[in-house]
Amino acid sequence: MDKKQFPILGIDLGGTKIAASIIIDTDTIGKPKRVPTPHGKENIIQALLKLIEEFKQDNLIVGVGIATAGIVNPDTGEVIGSTGNLPGWEGTPIKKIIEEKMALPVHVENDANASAYAEYRASKFKADTCLVTVTLGTGIGVGIVINGSLYRGAHFAAGECGHLKVSLNNHRRCTCGLWDCWEAYGSGRGFVATGYDALSKISAHQSKLALKKEKLTTEDIIEAAKDNDLVAKQIIETWHEHVAAGMVSLCHTLDPDCFVITGGMGKFVDYVLLKDLIMDMTLPRISEKLEIYPSSLGERGGMIGVAELVLDTFNSSAKYTQSLQKK
Amino acid sequence: MDKKQFPILGIDLGGTKIAASIIIDTDTIGKPKRVPTPHGKENIIQALLKLIEEFKQDNLIVGVGIATAGIVNPDTGEVIGSTGNLPGWEGTPIKKIIEEKMALPVHVENDANASAYAEYRASKFKADTCLVTVTLGTGIGVGIVINGSLYRGAHFAAGECGHLKVSLNNHRRCTCGLWDCWEAYGSGRGFVATGYDALSKISAHQSKLALKKEKLTTEDIIEAAKDNDLVAKQIIETWHEHVAAGMVSLCHTLDPDCFVITGGMGKFVDYVLLKDLIMDMTLPRISEKLEIYPSSLGERGGMIGVAELVLDTFNSSAKYTQSLQKK
Repeated sequence: MDKKQFPILGIDLGGTKIAASIIIDTDTIGKPKRVPTPHGKENIIQALLKLIEEFKQDNLIVGVGIATAGIVNPDTGEVIGSTGNLPGWEGTPIKKIIEEKMALPVHVENDANASAYAEYRASKFKADTCLVTVTLGTGIGVGIVINGSLYRGAHFAAGECGHLKVSLNNHRRCTCGLWDCWEAYGSGRGFVATGYDALSKISAHQSKLALKKEKLTTEDIIEAAKDNDLVAKQIIETWHEHVAAGMVSLCHTLDPDCFVITGGMGKFVDYVLLKDLIMDMTLPRISEKLEIYPSSLGERGGMIGVAELVLDTFNSSAKYTQSLQKK
Repeated sequence: MDKKQFPILGIDLGGTKIAASIIIDTDTIGKPKRVPTPHGKENIIQALLKLIEEFKQDNLIVGVGIATAGIVNPDTGEVIGSTGNLPGWEGTPIKKIIEEKMALPVHVENDANASAYAEYRASKFKADTCLVTVTLGTGIGVGIVINGSLYRGAHFAAGECGHLKVSLNNHRRCTCGLWDCWEAYGSGRGFVATGYDALSKISAHQSKLALKKEKLTTEDIIEAAKDNDLVAKQIIETWHEHVAAGMVSLCHTLDPDCFVITGGMGKFVDYVLLKDLIMDMTLPRISEKLEIYPSSLGERGGMIGVAELVLDTFNSSAKYTQSLQKK
């Protein structure tokens, strides 16, 4: 049996929900199962164990992968950096806890990293040197695959690019406490903040959006733009400039083969405009051959990627066993 | 004989001078020889050939390494991206030309890359995952060593970080034509520009520097700061903030083990201040264990690094020959 055919349970643990699916050969089998993320570390662990138990009853699985928010040491399977979305989760030795209870091999990975690895493995994007995923959601996350392997950095915090510094002006404060981080501009939150900035200067006869000054949403702006509202259109264009600004810095640092855009805000990206903006702001040698793709996997990226990483541990063990046998 | 002991001629080709030295075991032998860089592609090639011929007469050398400004394809040894400092140099197949004339193996590399590799190989800096050199000169160059190998990017243009975007305001134009590149602020040129910005708002009774409004130099500012001129001190502090801004973006992307600072402006860096600024603007997980070192090799980095790359080609050829012999 080819190892690609091994069934792995892939779990994506987010701030609001836990999604899980059997993964075979870089694809989900059936519709992923979703449960709300409970509050508190102990409850999350119980929810994970329950999910795994349920899948085990109905399926043969040979390993479990868990993609989680937060900075993860994948060697120990421990969450070493907390995330605002999962309070109290820092310091949890997830791999150890689950392996002891379940007697199954477990791999834990940061969710943005897992998504990037999934795009590299499951998609047919050419990326021999470097593939970079940009997750445009409430914040911005980045995953980096170099020469076919996840690049995690010296302290497992590579790709924390939501905190690239895109301005020297201390204009917008990021939720992390730092000033002028990329995600204070290019994320969904940044998009709405740009909307409020624009509305502060206009009145209702210039744009119907002015009526939303009290409570503006992403959808308000998108809908208004569809109705040809010029202010809304300008907000969307400025947001594209903001998204491009961080990608330009990634271009000049990593010179990637391609970017893959994912996350909830990804559906609002105008790929022609984004590529044009990046071309305008990047050395031609880098941007001429650069490709920018929409994600091929969407929300399933985390669970597929982490399942692939479980498979990789099997492969290296297999090689190790072989070399032992030869001796 | 250990391959480390092979004598290699290391050449550093810059915009104003060509420097060359025999390199053995990651060190220069004797004082490097320097000649002015002549104008035009043909003259540069003739100067390189003459230098190599001279060294060959007095020394046994088994290979030649050339570190050059510009984007280089090290597989073909061709300069594929021009540099303003070496007009007409783009498109020159340096490796082919020199190998044909000299019957010696030649490796050509971008100078910032060569410097980074030298710091990794010659220095004792701990950098198992990632070492990043930042060359603070007239511009800013970056070299990246990941897992002990140079990281060159998909189009050989990784580390063109002088063009990281540090502002959204279109305030300063970079010599590359783009707006608000890191090197428009953090380089020697940026330092003086910050000086002019500061002087536009002051008069001679506030700072003696105001007398230099017509023609300000780096040295003017440094000297004034030594005399406790508060405006000069503020310019230097602002420059440190600008240097830190780009390094913060590199931290959040690459999460390196260490930075190594090199280049002519390196001697003006206050390492305590720079580390403090980076700590202030970076997620603690990344900056807590980050080290920032002054270069251990200085100007010799380019020639030492490219000599090491020549040695690497010997090593891989040797392995190749061995495997052929086994068959």
